[in-house]
Amino acid sequence: MGTAQQVRGRCTNSVDSYHHTLGSSLPAISSEPGAVTLVNMRFCPYAQRTVLCLNAKKVDYEIINSQLMTKPEWLWELNPLGKVPIMFHNGHTIYESLVTCEYVEDVFPGGKLHSEDPGQRARDRMLVEVFNKVIMPLMRIWFGANKGFTAEDRARQWTESMKSLQLFETELATRGAGGFFSCEAHPGWLDFMIWPWCERIDAFFETYKEPGVKFQKEDFPVLSIWMERMLSDEAVREYLLDTETHSRFMATVAAGSPDYNMLSQS
Amino acid sequence: MGTAQQVRGRCTNSVDSYHHTLGSSLPAISSEPGAVTLVNMRFCPYAQRTVLCLNAKKVDYEIINSQLMTKPEWLWELNPLGKVPIMFHNGHTIYESLVTCEYVEDVFPGGKLHSEDPGQRARDRMLVEVFNKVIMPLMRIWFGANKGFTAEDRARQWTESMKSLQLFETELATRGAGGFFSCEAHPGWLDFMIWPWCERIDAFFETYKEPGVKFQKEDFPVLSIWMERMLSDEAVREYLLDTETHSRFMATVAAGSPDYNMLSQS
Repeated sequence: MGTAQQVRGRCTNSVDSYHHTLGSSLPAISSEPGAVTLVNMRFCPYAQRTVLCLNAKKVDYEIINSQLMTKPEWLWELNPLGKVPIMFHNGHTIYESLVTCEYVEDVFPGGKLHSEDPGQRARDRMLVEVFNKVIMPLMRIWFGANKGFTAEDRARQWTESMKSLQLFETELATRGAGGFFSCEAHPGWLDFMIWPWCERIDAFFETYKEPGVKFQKEDFPVLSIWMERMLSDEAVREYLLDTETHSRFMATVAAGSPDYNMLSQS
Repeated sequence: MGTAQQVRGRCTNSVDSYHHTLGSSLPAISSEPGAVTLVNMRFCPYAQRTVLCLNAKKVDYEIINSQLMTKPEWLWELNPLGKVPIMFHNGHTIYESLVTCEYVEDVFPGGKLHSEDPGQRARDRMLVEVFNKVIMPLMRIWFGANKGFTAEDRARQWTESMKSLQLFETELATRGAGGFFSCEAHPGWLDFMIWPWCERIDAFFETYKEPGVKFQKEDFPVLSIWMERMLSDEAVREYLLDTETHSRFMATVAAGSPDYNMLSQS
């Protein structure tokens, strides 16, 4: 995506706070009624889904950042899957990105993210599952350096991902080119659930400088306009990082030691 | 599980109908308002989730069975993921087991499967994701024959699965031993979502006769009582197969050619 300014939003501490690691103690989690705490990793696209939903609902929340390669012990204690996001609210500990987002939709007031129509709601949920076919090859590029991936390997994964992304180009054209997947004046469930990977779509070429991983706008005219529209959304802008920043992090992942604290002040 | 009689239920044709394969034409799908058609595979535990929800809500539905190893071409056309279940209702085509179940919960009257409490609802959804840690090693046993799995490989997978199953033993003990995960007099969301794998829990030993894959009731006293209770539930009974039948199918999978039509009358 184009360069974009990062704007601080609903987050009440800092989205760029220190990422805890092995040996860190778990910071205090507010037990105030209504307080929301999110265990996050600043560059994790899954956890970003939860952040986007919280931002969209204008919910205040505090972030605790965690490294993922060398996790603090308490991450496993909080979530047997050892992953972020983990959300705390009114005594509940909730993990798995989609589950946290459904919870945010269920309990917080503000604009609905889901369609009012159960058929459309099901189609959105279904397409989020289909979007895994876009995500998985991209993840293989991210972590492929460990496996000695070549430019050719990356190009093959990219092609596979883009082939699946075409389903979303067609879907949005059907729902109304120039709008959101929500068919409303603002983004909804499917828009937010797939956005984190779209925010990073130009970071692959930026990192590898290989034509085989370059996002070709002309192949995705409808999605390209949608991405520009998404960049104007307040919930997106509050957490947005530009392509150069995503690429810098991606390069540290490729080098085998992710620089989680790249944006953290000491 | 113990032997059990199969009772025909809400399904309006036959749950044991012929499984379509490569070259089959897609049977007519009713476009009557309110009609429900489910593309299924008789032995698929994922599709069984949808069947259980439809049964629990006492919804009438028609089944079209499909093979999965040699799929009919239309399965890919209906679902880009090429999987069952696929549900048709009022012009909608819905796939992914959990999405179909959420849809059934959303649109059909009858007892609620989800808890009324959003925190509990989120915890149920989350534990369904955690249950994948029980499922995945079991699936590796199912399909391990292709990879030359030995008894030792199977035992290792089994141990991993059972370790994760302990989380559910503890969870049910906390919610109330002797009851359902729903904390009601009848099963709810989490009960039905995990049941299909529990129905098959004794089929591994029945198939392989190896102590390493034997379900040890004494390690799971709370879940064992729950399984007995589940066997009395009408929605479960309407689709239930006994251990011997599951094992016969499992053996054909292990042999590399699943006998999908094992129960079909020509």
